[in-house]
Amino acid sequence: MINLTRGVPPVEVFPIEDLIRASEKNLREDGKRVLQYLHAPGYPPLVEYLAKKHEVDNDQVVLGNSSLELLQFVTLTEMKAGDYAFIESPSYDRANTLLKRSGANVVGIPLETDGVNLDVFEKELKKNAPKLFYIIPDFQNPMGTTTSLEKRKQIAKWAVEYNFLVIEDAPYRELRYHGTAVPSIRSFAPDHVVTLSSFSKTLAPGLRMGYMYGPKDIIKRITAWEVDTYIGSVTPTQGQVFEYLKQGSFEPNLKKLCDLYRPRLDTLLETLNEYLPNAVYPRPEGGFFVGVTLPEGNSMEKLLPAAAEAGFKLTDGRGFYLNPQDGDRFLRIPFCSLTPEEIRNAMQSLTKIIVH
Amino acid sequence: MINLTRGVPPVEVFPIEDLIRASEKNLREDGKRVLQYLHAPGYPPLVEYLAKKHEVDNDQVVLGNSSLELLQFVTLTEMKAGDYAFIESPSYDRANTLLKRSGANVVGIPLETDGVNLDVFEKELKKNAPKLFYIIPDFQNPMGTTTSLEKRKQIAKWAVEYNFLVIEDAPYRELRYHGTAVPSIRSFAPDHVVTLSSFSKTLAPGLRMGYMYGPKDIIKRITAWEVDTYIGSVTPTQGQVFEYLKQGSFEPNLKKLCDLYRPRLDTLLETLNEYLPNAVYPRPEGGFFVGVTLPEGNSMEKLLPAAAEAGFKLTDGRGFYLNPQDGDRFLRIPFCSLTPEEIRNAMQSLTKIIVH
Repeated sequence: MINLTRGVPPVEVFPIEDLIRASEKNLREDGKRVLQYLHAPGYPPLVEYLAKKHEVDNDQVVLGNSSLELLQFVTLTEMKAGDYAFIESPSYDRANTLLKRSGANVVGIPLETDGVNLDVFEKELKKNAPKLFYIIPDFQNPMGTTTSLEKRKQIAKWAVEYNFLVIEDAPYRELRYHGTAVPSIRSFAPDHVVTLSSFSKTLAPGLRMGYMYGPKDIIKRITAWEVDTYIGSVTPTQGQVFEYLKQGSFEPNLKKLCDLYRPRLDTLLETLNEYLPNAVYPRPEGGFFVGVTLPEGNSMEKLLPAAAEAGFKLTDGRGFYLNPQDGDRFLRIPFCSLTPEEIRNAMQSLTKIIVH
Repeated sequence: MINLTRGVPPVEVFPIEDLIRASEKNLREDGKRVLQYLHAPGYPPLVEYLAKKHEVDNDQVVLGNSSLELLQFVTLTEMKAGDYAFIESPSYDRANTLLKRSGANVVGIPLETDGVNLDVFEKELKKNAPKLFYIIPDFQNPMGTTTSLEKRKQIAKWAVEYNFLVIEDAPYRELRYHGTAVPSIRSFAPDHVVTLSSFSKTLAPGLRMGYMYGPKDIIKRITAWEVDTYIGSVTPTQGQVFEYLKQGSFEPNLKKLCDLYRPRLDTLLETLNEYLPNAVYPRPEGGFFVGVTLPEGNSMEKLLPAAAEAGFKLTDGRGFYLNPQDGDRFLRIPFCSLTPEEIRNAMQSLTKIIVH
């Protein structure tokens, strides 16, 4: 069974022994604090660490039990039912679900190789300015695309002009295997952007440790919402991660991940070129995914059972689109959990069930 | 400064070394599972453990990041804005806040020494049957009262007859220092009751580890809601607690807690009798609190600044009542974090600023 479904890290990258040592040290030194009730925004040394890392004040950071949860809190504190929300199309299926669940009018803006289509964005903006725009600018899920500098600047400009909030979700930003980083949208409109990040892709997803930084007034509302929801997010794992960071283990681990994932991405792009010459896909420089639009004549209805029969699992591409039919020929291919050889074999098998 | 505010365990009871060993063992043996994405309802061995402990099926249990959060999920999946919700009056201030935040019409039912006043309950029931009734039947927060067997049976009977959901919040149930346990409400109406519990009072609050068990259809909806909110609750701490339980450390620790808290409760009741002869309060047999109604002539407005000046902190009793004015003479006195000597001194100081 070749699994081409979820974007999960391979389990062998989890630094288990380092995390055991970090947990032991933090519990022994500060156990009375991390095991006691601790109000949001989170374990203070970790809040300070993240504030310093992202060059913001301490009261501009809030931790949560996953960044997805923090996205929900933003919808709960910043929006009312009936407000408009923009999202890239396609986008992270769980973000689509959350925004729809919030009662928002969710508008999908078509995604191109260098970010959303600005003409459509502007047209929709003039029709109904949104309360918020959810975007994954670096190595987008599910496409793998990175929003260009010019598009980031324009989005920031509109955010100020039309007074909407940009939710810049950046869990993959540090997982860059080629090229150089593009400045964040936040850097062009710090009062109109909140940035979400997490340790799910750079350390371990089971920690469910997300965080958000941005304007003080929004962070304050999210913090108060957390206190009313669960008093504070889970703390012993925050102590553990803080100790892991303090020991300087994060950067070498990140480098190890990039070195491991780089040839996997390269192999996927090579084999796509070789086996699916008529498919359309971007050339990501990092992250977890390459989004592939198959040639006409393909459809999920036929593809999914054929894939199952051929011994592998695919993600239904329709889940990434607000209008599911738009994803009928769309495949999100995750590459981090497969070796180059497994990727080559998977693409070779895939080619046999695709209409070229 | 004598702190008579929050109901927190004393930090010296946290079994730090046992938790370090449990975490190390679980991470080493099952780290690849607890550090990976794991969908709700939670870490399977812990789900199974809790199902067995509470004599339900595995698919009748869901874990969450605190039981307060699970209460919120129940309001989100089981209620619509405008539905009626009943709650004891007074009750846990955070539960009041959550129910109000859900958009429910929240109705407080006066609490007596043996549980809610059934006449008022029935009258309100006939006016507007609620969607749910939130109750802390064992060693109630903030009162310390335990709902009698007869009242439990009647509540269960009405839940079936009027088809509402009882949320039986039982975080203190195992912390009984005198007398014998009363059967749960769930035992009389298993299809109409969900039970909330947590490890905050019996192990450590910083874990934010709550769980819920009850009818399969509700547990299924909560589980799906969790998947859409954060995929799964924080897992490494669940692995740690599972290992701690498996090693048989929970029961001796619980006994140690009861032995520590029993003389503290006894001292509080003695000194209340001695120093506040005209106050009205129940005689709890367990838990964290004794709820005290001061004689007429007292009011929060005067009491809080006087307490601050006398060197101690009190909780504003008005927060426990839906109609804040009802709590104007109400004090919740937490006793677990203070030694008998500290309790005696605190009551002695308190008596000087009370109108008798």
